[in-house]
Amino acid sequence: MAAPSERTTLRRLPARGRYDRDTVHAILDEGLICHLAFLDDGRPAVMPTGYARVGDSLYLHGSRKNHALLATIGCDCSVEVSLLDGIVLARSAFSHSFNYRSVVILGRGEEVVNDREKAKALEAIVEHIVPGRSAECRAPNQKEIDATLVVKISLEESSAKVRSGPPHDDREDMEFPVWAGVLPVRLKWGPAEADNDRPTPEYVTKYRRGR
Amino acid sequence: MAAPSERTTLRRLPARGRYDRDTVHAILDEGLICHLAFLDDGRPAVMPTGYARVGDSLYLHGSRKNHALLATIGCDCSVEVSLLDGIVLARSAFSHSFNYRSVVILGRGEEVVNDREKAKALEAIVEHIVPGRSAECRAPNQKEIDATLVVKISLEESSAKVRSGPPHDDREDMEFPVWAGVLPVRLKWGPAEADNDRPTPEYVTKYRRGR
Repeated sequence: MAAPSERTTLRRLPARGRYDRDTVHAILDEGLICHLAFLDDGRPAVMPTGYARVGDSLYLHGSRKNHALLATIGCDCSVEVSLLDGIVLARSAFSHSFNYRSVVILGRGEEVVNDREKAKALEAIVEHIVPGRSAECRAPNQKEIDATLVVKISLEESSAKVRSGPPHDDREDMEFPVWAGVLPVRLKWGPAEADNDRPTPEYVTKYRRGR
Repeated sequence: MAAPSERTTLRRLPARGRYDRDTVHAILDEGLICHLAFLDDGRPAVMPTGYARVGDSLYLHGSRKNHALLATIGCDCSVEVSLLDGIVLARSAFSHSFNYRSVVILGRGEEVVNDREKAKALEAIVEHIVPGRSAECRAPNQKEIDATLVVKISLEESSAKVRSGPPHDDREDMEFPVWAGVLPVRLKWGPAEADNDRPTPEYVTKYRRGR
């Protein structure tokens, strides 16, 4: 990931491109849903799904019959994760923007066939979503592991893109008579909705991620 | 959109599939960022971008040199919008899930060449993001309209998928000694960060969308 490939080098707005591994990892670790693009009978398609990062790999999972996951095995695919940080209201319509952090991965899916790596990947996905959960919930049994398809995608060809800060208007628009600025956004969690009478764990009541 | 095509008919978990036009429109109208999948030299790629829905079309915009947008013109592409509503913590790791609403569109990009339709699409994109904004900010001039590529994608082949409500565990897991329930999430906006001294408009201070 140190040297961006030709395909992951940003062609537009290169100032927003970030290639360092820490930035890519931090965005992936904060996100919850990724967007998986694959070829479906030769046509591009995209769907949302959960995931976890372990080292320099992304793990996806689903049913053994999940056609999107199946379409990635040994084939080119792409995964994107985006975090929205705010709306940028510029003086001109043209300069409106979002503040965001995103990662795009170009890779190929590899089916995880080793049961131990599969179980670890499934645990990582639960832990990615709710840290602390996998030690408490009922772990997958062999039947569930067998019924689950786990796919690994390398982060080798990945890049991040980040926009932050105030609007950038052209100089001649700076005195245009309209408010300009940023409307930040973040995720607000809870309150939890219990499905049984057991005490709500702290990893739920104090759940937060990112900023 | 009344009759789902073979490709948009959900193959997995068909109970979550929604095909009615109102559901698709409501999800697209609440979302801010879509995920555009396209073919890049024969390989699938995906990137985030803003959009607006007008009637049964989705409008995307970008620079004239935006390779993702260019790759959709006259070609198959796919667009996805997802709204995360919560994390579903089941008794078993296997039954963990998200509550969400998502739309997947399969279509082809069509370049909007008519300046009037282009200007209307750009206004719709600003209004989609911040209702009330386009009447106040400096509208695009001809040079900006010329520099912008606007692509229209029909919603004809689109479908929605929705999961809501509590966890669904297998009966034999119901007494497993762990808290179960849903951790809801929503977007929290503001406070606005001003870039000039003009009064902050109500469409910013009272901004909200969706639930």
